[in-house]
Formats: sequence, C-alpha cells, structure tokens
Amino acid sequence: MPADALVIFTPSGKRGRFPLGTPVLQAARQLGVDLDSVCGGRGICSKCQISPGYGEFPKHGVTVDEDALSEWNAVEERYKSKRGMAPGRRLGCQAQVMGDVVIDVPPESQVHKQVIRKSATERVMTMDPATRSYYVEVDEPDMHEPSGDFERLTRALAAQWQIATPTAGLGVLRKLQSVLRKGEWKVTAVVHQGHNDALPQLLDVYPGYHEGGLYGLAIDLGSTTIAAHLCDLSDGRVLASAGLMNPQIRFGEDLMSRVSYVMMNPGGEVEMTRAVREAIDGLAVTIAADAKIDASAIFEAVIVCNPVMHHLLLGIDPVELGQAPFALSTSDALSLGASELDLDALNPAARVYMLPCIAGHVGADCAAVALSEEPGKSKEMVLIVDVGTNAELLLGNETRVLACSSPTGPAFEGAQISSGQRAAPGAIERVEIDVVTKEPRFKVIGSDLWSTDPGFSAATATSGITGICGSGIIEAVAEMRMAGLVDAGGLIGSPDQTGTARCVPHGRTHSYVLHDARAEGGARILVTQGDIRAIQLAKSALYAGARLLMDEMGIDHVERVTLAGAFGAHISPKHAMVLGMIPDVPLDRVVSAGNAAGTGARIALCSKAARAAIEATVHEIHKVETAIAPRFQEHFVNANAIPHATDPFTELHRIVTLPDVSFNTGGSGGENRRRRRG
Amino acid sequence: MPADALVIFTPSGKRGRFPLGTPVLQAARQLGVDLDSVCGGRGICSKCQISPGYGEFPKHGVTVDEDALSEWNAVEERYKSKRGMAPGRRLGCQAQVMGDVVIDVPPESQVHKQVIRKSATERVMTMDPATRSYYVEVDEPDMHEPSGDFERLTRALAAQWQIATPTAGLGVLRKLQSVLRKGEWKVTAVVHQGHNDALPQLLDVYPGYHEGGLYGLAIDLGSTTIAAHLCDLSDGRVLASAGLMNPQIRFGEDLMSRVSYVMMNPGGEVEMTRAVREAIDGLAVTIAADAKIDASAIFEAVIVCNPVMHHLLLGIDPVELGQAPFALSTSDALSLGASELDLDALNPAARVYMLPCIAGHVGADCAAVALSEEPGKSKEMVLIVDVGTNAELLLGNETRVLACSSPTGPAFEGAQISSGQRAAPGAIERVEIDVVTKEPRFKVIGSDLWSTDPGFSAATATSGITGICGSGIIEAVAEMRMAGLVDAGGLIGSPDQTGTARCVPHGRTHSYVLHDARAEGGARILVTQGDIRAIQLAKSALYAGARLLMDEMGIDHVERVTLAGAFGAHISPKHAMVLGMIPDVPLDRVVSAGNAAGTGARIALCSKAARAAIEATVHEIHKVETAIAPRFQEHFVNANAIPHATDPFTELHRIVTLPDVSFNTGGSGGENRRRRRG
Repeated sequence: MPADALVIFTPSGKRGRFPLGTPVLQAARQLGVDLDSVCGGRGICSKCQISPGYGEFPKHGVTVDEDALSEWNAVEERYKSKRGMAPGRRLGCQAQVMGDVVIDVPPESQVHKQVIRKSATERVMTMDPATRSYYVEVDEPDMHEPSGDFERLTRALAAQWQIATPTAGLGVLRKLQSVLRKGEWKVTAVVHQGHNDALPQLLDVYPGYHEGGLYGLAIDLGSTTIAAHLCDLSDGRVLASAGLMNPQIRFGEDLMSRVSYVMMNPGGEVEMTRAVREAIDGLAVTIAADAKIDASAIFEAVIVCNPVMHHLLLGIDPVELGQAPFALSTSDALSLGASELDLDALNPAARVYMLPCIAGHVGADCAAVALSEEPGKSKEMVLIVDVGTNAELLLGNETRVLACSSPTGPAFEGAQISSGQRAAPGAIERVEIDVVTKEPRFKVIGSDLWSTDPGFSAATATSGITGICGSGIIEAVAEMRMAGLVDAGGLIGSPDQTGTARCVPHGRTHSYVLHDARAEGGARILVTQGDIRAIQLAKSALYAGARLLMDEMGIDHVERVTLAGAFGAHISPKHAMVLGMIPDVPLDRVVSAGNAAGTGARIALCSKAARAAIEATVHEIHKVETAIAPRFQEHFVNANAIPHATDPFTELHRIVTLPDVSFNTGGSGGENRRRRRG
Repeated sequence: MPADALVIFTPSGKRGRFPLGTPVLQAARQLGVDLDSVCGGRGICSKCQISPGYGEFPKHGVTVDEDALSEWNAVEERYKSKRGMAPGRRLGCQAQVMGDVVIDVPPESQVHKQVIRKSATERVMTMDPATRSYYVEVDEPDMHEPSGDFERLTRALAAQWQIATPTAGLGVLRKLQSVLRKGEWKVTAVVHQGHNDALPQLLDVYPGYHEGGLYGLAIDLGSTTIAAHLCDLSDGRVLASAGLMNPQIRFGEDLMSRVSYVMMNPGGEVEMTRAVREAIDGLAVTIAADAKIDASAIFEAVIVCNPVMHHLLLGIDPVELGQAPFALSTSDALSLGASELDLDALNPAARVYMLPCIAGHVGADCAAVALSEEPGKSKEMVLIVDVGTNAELLLGNETRVLACSSPTGPAFEGAQISSGQRAAPGAIERVEIDVVTKEPRFKVIGSDLWSTDPGFSAATATSGITGICGSGIIEAVAEMRMAGLVDAGGLIGSPDQTGTARCVPHGRTHSYVLHDARAEGGARILVTQGDIRAIQLAKSALYAGARLLMDEMGIDHVERVTLAGAFGAHISPKHAMVLGMIPDVPLDRVVSAGNAAGTGARIALCSKAARAAIEATVHEIHKVETAIAPRFQEHFVNANAIPHATDPFTELHRIVTLPDVSFNTGGSGGENRRRRRG
C-alpha cells in the first residue's frame, strides 16, 4: 500500500500527492485551492464542506474507491444532526485522504464565491470582502512570559491565518479581556483588510466561534432620496432594502440651492451634515430591524453620492463646487471610521468606504455606475444615463470613456410637478392615453391593475390615488404628445384644439385632467403647462449632456443606451425616447440597469478588487464640464422641443407617425421663451 | 574653465562633482548630506544655512577660491536684514557652486541634529521626530484635469518631498480648501510618519510658509503625580515643564487600591479614566500658556506610565492587573489619536505614542527608564531604581537585563506620612540631626538656607513650613537612626532613652519633634512611629525587589546603582543607603539619572529610531514577578531592620559606625510584629 495518494480538486483542477491521513482542508490549503474555513479546521464552522466523487474518472485518470476518505466521524455526525448536511457532503477538515480521490468544492464552500448578477450585461462577481471573521485559539497569559492579550491574539491571527499584525481601536481593546476569558481563549475575530497599503484592523471580537454573520450597507445617497441595501458580507445577498427622503431637502431641493444656502449662511453645512448623517444612521437602524439582525453586526458601509452630497456628508464646505473650477476638496476614494461620520448604529469600529469622485460635478455615484456597468469594457459605443436630481452620463467603449453631469433638477423624481409626489403607494406610475378618445388609463403603485380594469377601485381603496410620481409624469407627457394633446413646442391645446374636455383652461394656459375624484372626496390630478415645462427643462438638460459627450467623442449616434437610476427602474424607454430625453437608438438597444449606482456600491462592498479597479478606472475617465461648455447651452436650447417622428426605427416609427399638431401662438411662444431665459 | 566642480561637505566628508550653477542644497540632497530645509529650496525657511570654507584644504586636497560660490544675492540679503544671519553663513538654496568648495553644515542646519544629553552616561541623541512640517507649492485646480485639493497636495508632497500618499482625517480635509486658497496654493503641511508600517498622516495645514514651530509633550503619568515637558520637535529643547497631582488619588492612593475600587465598583474605571484624561488635557493647556505657544501646535505626545495607569488612561478595566497572571490587555507600543484620549487641547489630529509595557507590573515607565539609561548597553552590572508610588527596578548589563516592580506605596512621595505633603514650597526636604545634641536643622523647598542660618525665617515667611516631603522624611528617618534616636528595629526611643525632650510620648509610642511653631501660630511637624513604620515597609519592598533580581541574576553585589525618579532628583544616596533602601555599593558608584522615565519619554518624542529600539528592547528584558516569588516575602521581612554599619566603604563606614542602640522591648516588638503581619 502506498504511503501517499493523489488528490484532485474540482472545479479548479489543482492536484497533488499527500501522505495518507492528510485532512482534505490541509491538502486544499497546500495546493492553494479556494476552500473556505472560519474555524481553521477545528470542525466548528462547517464552511469547508466538500463533495468527494467515487468511481472511475477517465478524464483525471483515476479510480476512486469507497474508502478513499477516512470514515465519517463523530464531529461530522454531530454537525449533521445539529444543522443538517446535504447527502454526499463531508467536512474537509475531518475527512482524511486515504486513497486517490477527486474532491469537488461546491460554490458555497469557496471563500471567493462567484455571484451571477442579473443586469444589462450578465456578470460574475467574485466575493472578496474587506471584512472577514476568523476563529482563533489564543495562548493563555503566562506571567513568566508576559505579553498582552492583544499581542497573543495577533500572534494567533498570524500563526493560524497569516494575517499581519492589525491595529485596534480603544473600543475593541477595552472589551478584549472579557471576551477572551468568556470564550476560554477561543474567539472569533473580525478583521478588516483593505485593498491598499493600510494595516489590517481588528474591528471586533466575539467569544468562541461566532455563528452570526457580518453585514454591510450599500448606500446610494442621492440629493432627494437615500437608499440602502443590507448585504451579507459572506455571499453578497441583499437581506433588506430601505429608503427615505434626504432631510437636506429643507435646505434646498436641488444641489445648487443647497450650495447657495451655505453661501448665504456660512457654516450652514454643519446643520446639513448633521441632518444627513442622522438620516443614514436611522436608516441603518430601520434596515437592521427589517432584517432582524443586530446593527452592531454591520461592519462596513459603502457610500456613493454626488460631489455636493459627498462634501456635505463629510462636513466639508461645498461652496467651491458651486463655482468654477469646481474643485473638490478630495476626490480619491476614502476609507473612514463610521464613527467619524457619526454612524453610531453600526458596529463602533465599522469602516466606511466612499468611492472616488470623477470630478467636481461627477461624483462617486457616477463612479459606482461605471463600476457596475463597465463602459470601458464595452465593445459597442454605449451611453449610460443615470437620472436622479442630477443626471450623470457616461459615454464610451473600451477605447475611451467620457463622463459629464447635467443639472436636470428633481422633476424626473416627481418634484416641482403640480401633483407630483415621490414613488409610493397611491402614486400614478404608468399612463396611457387613447389617441382617438383622448381618454387616459393609468396604474398606481401598489396595484397591478389599470384604472379601467374591474376591481381597480377596490384595489386602490387603501392607498387612494394621491399624485403622480416621476415615471408617471414622463409617461403622461409623452402620451399627451402622442395623442396630439401637446404640440412639438410643449404647449397643451385648448378643448377646442384637442377635441377633449379633459383639456381645461388653467390661468393663461391649459391643463389635462388625468384623474378627478373630487366628487368622491378624492383628488384631482392634473398635468399642467408648468409640469410640461419642468419636464422639458429637465429632459433638455439631459439630452444636451448626452450630445455634448457625443460631440467630444466625435460621433453622431450611439450603439447602445443603458438606463440607470430611477430611469432604468421605472421610466419606460419608449416614453423617454418620445420625449427626446435620450438620443435615438433602436428600442432593443436600450437596456435597463436598474439602480446601477446602488449596484456599484454593492459590488464595492463585496470586493476589494472592485475597489482597486474603480480607483484606477476613474483616473482614465475623461471629464467633460457641462457648466462651461458653450455648446451645452446650444444643445439645451435646441432640445427643448418634443421631437417629431423622424427616426426610422420600427416601433418608435409606429408610435409617433401620427398626424402632428401645433398649438403654438404668439402668446404661448412668448411664455416659452421667457421660461428659457429665466 | 571646467563645467563642473568638486563639492566637499563637512562634517560628513561626503563629496561629489556638480555642474557649475548647482545650488548647494541640491548638491547636498544628491549626496545624501543631512542639510535641513522646510521650504524645499525656495529661500523662505532659512533652515539650510551653510558655512563655506575658503583657502587651502590639504586634508581634502582642494583650494577654495573666494568666488567658489555664486554671489550673495537678494534673497539672502532680505533674510539677513529681516532675521539676521551669522557672519560667513550662506543660504544653501541660494548659493550656487561655481568652483571647488568645502562646505560645512553647522549642527543647527542638520535635520538629524544631535543633542548631547547630560545624564548618568553622557549620550548623543539624534533628532528624528515622527512629525515634521513641509512647505509645498500645490497645483491650482484645473477643471479640465479635475482632481481634489487633497490629491494635488499629496502629489506635491510626493514630488517635492518624496512622501508617500498620506491619510488625512476629516478635520484637516475640512480646512484644506480655505487654507490652500488663503496661502495662494502654497502651504506648510504637518505630516506624521511613524517608525512602523502605518501610512503617513497629514495632521494639519497652514497657509503659506508657517513660521511657528511644532511641539510635543513628554508625559510621565505617575500614580501620584503627572509631569509633562513641552519640547520643540525641531531640536528637542524643553520649553516648559509642569506637573500636578493625579486626580485619581481620590479613588485610591496606590495602584492596588484603585484596582480594588474597580473590583468593588464595576465600571468604576470610567470615572478614573475621565479624571486622568482631563488632568492631562488641563496640563497641556497650562504648559502651552507657560511657554506662550498655541496648544494646537502640539502635534505629538509621548506618555509613559505604569500598567495600571496605562489601562486606566486607555479606559481598560485594570482588574486583571490585580491578580495572577497579571495579564495586560495590550502590552506593545500604541499609536493613537489624541482625540481618542479626549486630549482636546492639543491639535485635533495630534498623535499619542505610548511606550510598550514590559509586563503586568512593569510598565511603559520602566521601558522609558530602559530607553534613557540603556542597562543593556552597560559593561558593568548596574541596578537602576526608579521610585514613585511603585518602584521599578532594572538589573543587568550587556549580557542580560532583568526587571521587576515593587509595591513601595506612596510613602517615598510624602504620602501616608503624618506631616507628609508633596514636594512644594514650604515642605521640609533636607534634614540633619546633630548626633550629640540631637537637635535638627532642615531646609525647606523654596530656600537654600538651613533652618539654623540667619535669615531663614524671613526667607520662608511666604511659604511657611507646612510639612515634610518624600526626600525630607527619608533623610529625617536616616538621621534619627544615625543620631541614635531610632534603633535597628525602627523604634523611636523615649526622652529618657534618647536623652532629648524632642522625643515626646505619642499614644503608646514616641514621636520626634522636627519643628514646632505652634507658639507663632505655625505647625508642629513630627516624625511619628507610624511614619517610621511606613518608611520601613516601603524601603523593605524596594530592597526586596533588588535582592530578588540579584538572586535571579546569581550575584551578590552590583557594580553601579542608578537612582531615577523622585529618588534620583531629591533623595540623597547616602541616606538611602543608611536606610537600606538599596544594596550596598561604594557611594561614588551611585549616580543620579534624574527623572529617567521622563527623559525616556522625551527621547521617544524626538526620535522614531528610539521608538523602534525600545520596542525591540522590551522583548529582550526578562521579567521577574515579585508578587508570586516566595523569596520576595523572605527578603521583604529580612529587610525590615534599618541596617547596622557592616559595609566596608569609607564614607558610609564613617557615618554609621556610631554606638548603636536598641529600644526594642516586649511591647514594642509586638507592635512591630503586628505591623509586619498586617
């Protein structure tokens, strides 16, 4: 009988000969096979489960006997009876090599799990989180060889996990004594290892083997809304999501009005900083409660936001961002203690990673979109549009990527709209208008029924029909245009001109009655001329930004459009194109990336490599400054109209090749021009 | 005429050929010559002053012409008229090499200035502070090449000073914008570069070239007193010193009573932590005011203390230090933010360095003594004794160093003494007793006169004579013993036995009246039997510690004794030896090192290399645990007597070869034995 045996690991294909009796985990480590273990092979954590294969393996040239591994043992039995284990599985730390064997490492037993993300481009993401836990057995103190508890712990981390001596804050040093003694010198250490040169940090310690998970928050801090996803740092799963309005809105609805607030009230950023930090902290409390986890198990947060929010969160005066040359105080990625940002709900030693900003108007949110959508890896020329209160645009392919931002204002989010509201139950989110009868039908958030469907009233009885959200107003305006209720200049026609009593006089202009439940004590929801102007201004700004990038790139059309943010999630590409929000492109070349900034935040949360990648990438993205480009103004003015049906693409063609109308009169045109100049 | 010339720097002897027109500073840098500059050669800081030598230099084989350097220029003229410059000096950044030249770099122009320290062993200390300031010119923001202010600053630091990208706290990021603009993109950056792998840290920025200095605090945090020295980080000078009582005294006079306080009042360390942090912060305010500097220019503090104070300062429960195995929570050196310790008077980004502890009873204060006195470099077998409320002892030579601590209690500091007080004006600090008349004379702090000198009353009128400090009580007891007022067992004789009415009955024992001003409304200052017992207990503990180390080392006598702490500064070696506080050694082999722990703190403040050295050294010091050594108790009991004159050394011999007395009776002996057992 030979003294050693051949061990082949799949899917890696790594192989080697090991003395009989070698635990599979040890063989895996020696070969550099990615087999997880938190307890270091002590039969506690069960992360090292493997699936041995038996029989003939012609591909590998081996035959595996039934006794190729040591017998099922008591540790495995205990774990199986306590937690259950899939048939055929063994614990890698218990099963020993007794003959040639082929061993499969299932995905959930890999440290660097790969997660398939469903999005525009389906992609495999590798789990590579900065914060991980390690079970260690620490030497007891010996008064004849005196050393500190912390030093013995770091020695154990070095010996058992090859972790360089970490630093530790006073908080963890303060609890270390009692945790070590409570765990009888066995503890689970939570260690943060960044992707750069910073020393590792010991964030927390738990007595014994700690069953609880480690969590992270991916936070998309917008001017109007703050959204957070709570993720499991072991596998990237989203356990809960939550959002709230940015409380800074009371200081100004858009970014520049907040900057103005600080200009007029020096030091005013202090109050705004406090407000946004409290909001994020409260969100962490809410989301942890939703997921039924202890918020102190949140060890990381990744925050993406635009530059003004970036500065206001950090407590930095944003005034420089309001004037040329739009200089950021700091643009590179930041690694901070959560406590520095007063995020006290998280673990006291939690780390916050802020993605780098691209420029004074193009922030970490845009960097996050770039991380998620990877325009620099695209063969096609792709335009990525992320709409919030500010729009960020990326244009490029593997040769070159350009970026800019465009001040669309909050209209796309339902703000500054007469019946506007944020996307919540009761808000109209989809609209269709019959081109013949001019009668509308709509859907409200919270129900899948159209307003003309039976049962709609019952389905919406609780929420009521309270207003119209961003996607609703965009569809409404586009549908009004397609139904001939609005002309190319954006003017709503009179009842006479449009042939419908739903166009009602409203001051010197007209409004379209989308819904009227006043008789039943409900709301009347109008689309006013002012609403159309707000949408025109917003979409002109967006379109002008895209055109500016195309000019800079020297192209006339793009090959693909990726819609991200509120846009991608809720606004229909068809209606966006009718409105002229985005350049013309075949509808099947328009894809939605959902909340790409939030996705980018989640990727950065789960992967150190992704952090390093985006930090390098942002330096390669060329920034185009809209605020000083004369052509931006030109494009902006030219984009004001709601376009004619001139494009050759089938579906759009069908939609817009209707007899067009014009309601433009001297008076209304004047109103239009005044608007533009204001 | 040749295109280049030979430049020879002294005292380094480094030499090289440089193209004509090369500034001397640039030549120095290329050769690695230690020539200081904060402004980087811009003629602002004047740190690069040099002294060219002219004429024949046979040793170097060159002749230096008068025109070997470029002409005195306007920048130099401006500096000279504004600040003055010594004759013959030039600015190294202005003077250009025009011919072979010999250039002396005076000590004050060297970055790594060497400072001669007067102490036991005269020693050269190299200035090598962790925190330095750098003048940089930063690129202005360019919206076409967007980058953050911070990133442009770090780029300038890298290009102009070869400093790796530093981290920065939010505080400095917050002020960076306005400082850069105020200084018109020229700033002085204060950068901390540690001696280990941690990244550099940007601590502060000042607009333009900042004239003000950088300061550091060396803090000796004792159980009873806290002493601080304010040092200039450019040359190590002590600008001011201050001290105060440790406010933790209200929780217990000695360390173990503070540990007991926490045992009895779990969480009681919180209050003690707050008290000591506030005290240190207040001390920083006082000392900065004394030196007329802004406390925010204090960028570093080094703190040395015993392990219990170490834990209480850090906010760590000290209870483990009160029981075997006396495990420290952390023993290695710590680098912390001053704000973590609530030291808010310092610069907000100031760093605190805490020296490593040697063991659970032998702290960073002992490490500081080792750093100052370097027993491991001694050829002789040296005993270093540092007395505070706890005594730390080091014994060794270049072969081996041992350490222990001994719980002497605060008697040596004047506490637990009937008329005891801390060393302050009005306290008796020196005592002599005439062996014939038994009459005392003494000196009080604040006057150089003996109490028998004319003018003494006038000189002490302001302070009065208020009590007796640690050195005073030690001298008093030793003098009483030498005058035959106290027997070998420590008992004070009656008036009959001693022949002086100054020995007065006091309860069941006697007291010696050192001073009686009650008739004039002043104090009566006694040395009571209880005082003698307190001193006996303290000195026995100290002596027993020394003996224990000698046992461990396998030696019967030491070659040198170094007295440090209160001991070295104020207690006379002669009296210490009469009392039997230290092992016998010829008096000329006893040297005083002053406040060696404080000196060690200052060395660590001024030198990164010293920090690295002591961190390595403490691991080589072997710790002897007094608390569990049976022989410690044995030595302690045996050391209780105040020794007979048995040693052969001249001076001591003369002092103590007096007819000895014994007042020991049954009753008193019983009292003595009870004391010992109590």
